[in-house]
Amino acid sequence: MRFPIEVRYNDYDTKGHINNAVYLTYFEIARARAWLEAMRGDPDFPFVVAEAQIKYVSEGMIGEPIDIEIGTTEVRNKAWVWTYIIRCQRDNRVVAEGSTVQVMFDYASRRTIPIPDDVRGALALV
Amino acid sequence: MRFPIEVRYNDYDTKGHINNAVYLTYFEIARARAWLEAMRGDPDFPFVVAEAQIKYVSEGMIGEPIDIEIGTTEVRNKAWVWTYIIRCQRDNRVVAEGSTVQVMFDYASRRTIPIPDDVRGALALV
Amino acid sequence: MRFPIEVRYNDYDTKGHINNAVYLTYFEIARARAWLEAMRGDPDFPFVVAEAQIKYVSEGMIGEPIDIEIGTTEVRNKAWVWTYIIRCQRDNRVVAEGSTVQVMFDYASRRTIPIPDDVRGALALV
Amino acid sequence: MRFPIEVRYNDYDTKGHINNAVYLTYFEIARARAWLEAMRGDPDFPFVVAEAQIKYVSEGMIGEPIDIEIGTTEVRNKAWVWTYIIRCQRDNRVVAEGSTVQVMFDYASRRTIPIPDDVRGALALV
Repeated sequence: MRFPIEVRYNDYDTKGHINNAVYLTYFEIARARAWLEAMRGDPDFPFVVAEAQIKYVSEGMIGEPIDIEIGTTEVRNKAWVWTYIIRCQRDNRVVAEGSTVQVMFDYASRRTIPIPDDVRGALALV
Repeated sequence: MRFPIEVRYNDYDTKGHINNAVYLTYFEIARARAWLEAMRGDPDFPFVVAEAQIKYVSEGMIGEPIDIEIGTTEVRNKAWVWTYIIRCQRDNRVVAEGSTVQVMFDYASRRTIPIPDDVRGALALV
Repeated sequence: MRFPIEVRYNDYDTKGHINNAVYLTYFEIARARAWLEAMRGDPDFPFVVAEAQIKYVSEGMIGEPIDIEIGTTEVRNKAWVWTYIIRCQRDNRVVAEGSTVQVMFDYASRRTIPIPDDVRGALALV
Repeated sequence: MRFPIEVRYNDYDTKGHINNAVYLTYFEIARARAWLEAMRGDPDFPFVVAEAQIKYVSEGMIGEPIDIEIGTTEVRNKAWVWTYIIRCQRDNRVVAEGSTVQVMFDYASRRTIPIPDDVRGALALV
């Protein structure tokens, strides 16, 4: 799945760059979009993020329109990996890329749980 | 260096957790503090962040006071690694840990540059 | 001008509401859009915000798609007023409404300046 | 009550100013502090913000340490007004000032309620 990110003026820092922490928010926007579109899931996510990593490949500058791509790259028993690439729409260059590990979580019992079958099926579509 | 983080109400998400992206902001607060205290540096950082990674070890919940520790764990020619541990002040448990790679950057010429000697000396103090 | 806002998961607070401060960011998104579309202006705004006020009319809840409307409601010599209404797309109810006062600013001389004619003309289109 | 704000690097915008929306977050930090210190209240606030207004009096620039003052300026049956002044610690000049109206809220029944006596007493201390 690939779609544009609505960059906000206050995502930029004093240098006119997208702030490094904001990219994790872009990853979260992609997760929300994937979750809602492929899985028609609850916007209040039933999983937790266990790990995140990111490489800042080129400068994301003020005024540049950007896209994000999200894909499922690994599915385990309770956890899965989503991988992200953020590109400038103008020249398609990579601005940042990274991944996050999600763990299925039951907020009622506050425990991790195996990935349900419907989620497992939907993950293949992302 | 270890010091408390002033957690903000809007750092919390719908689950009452500190949002996953906000931890990178806490890393940035630690960088700013290290930069200003050990190096008496310009608050407008003369470096860029090239990589970040984080593990979310336990849930950081609303109302819990937290500390962050930052240490220099590697120094190269142009780049260095800072490592972070975020702990709950009450039980000292680890909430999150991670690292970032910084590259010295000359914003005038927009190029990476070798770490100056005074910065190299100061990095040893963090 | 009226358009949808891309709400982010971390705009929500512990109650599942859009956080009160985030609405000013939505106002800023509307300003950016107006500035770029009606005025084809620099994304690095040449004005400062002098005042803001907002009424939180109904609860903006997680999962609700929202729109923002922006209109120019007053133009003075150096300053103008933009007024905003945020509505839920589902039932068109008002979630929040407010206004901001902008003052034209020359960042080179760091002084307020009269509104240039081209900006004045474009303000009439918002 | 007056206390320092821990300004974060990503509070600053491309101009090196504190972003206009972030000031409402500073007001929220002051509310949290007042609520916890004067009222020993739940960090998950039992009230909603109904209105906010702010004047941006002077530029809050990168590197400037700032303080916030919060005071209770009006108490009604269900609602009260908190007023804020943000000052630069160096020259004590006013950077911004504003106010918010809070309404006591019962999240279980989702209704506004009269201010309880213990809260009313504590409001006098802020």
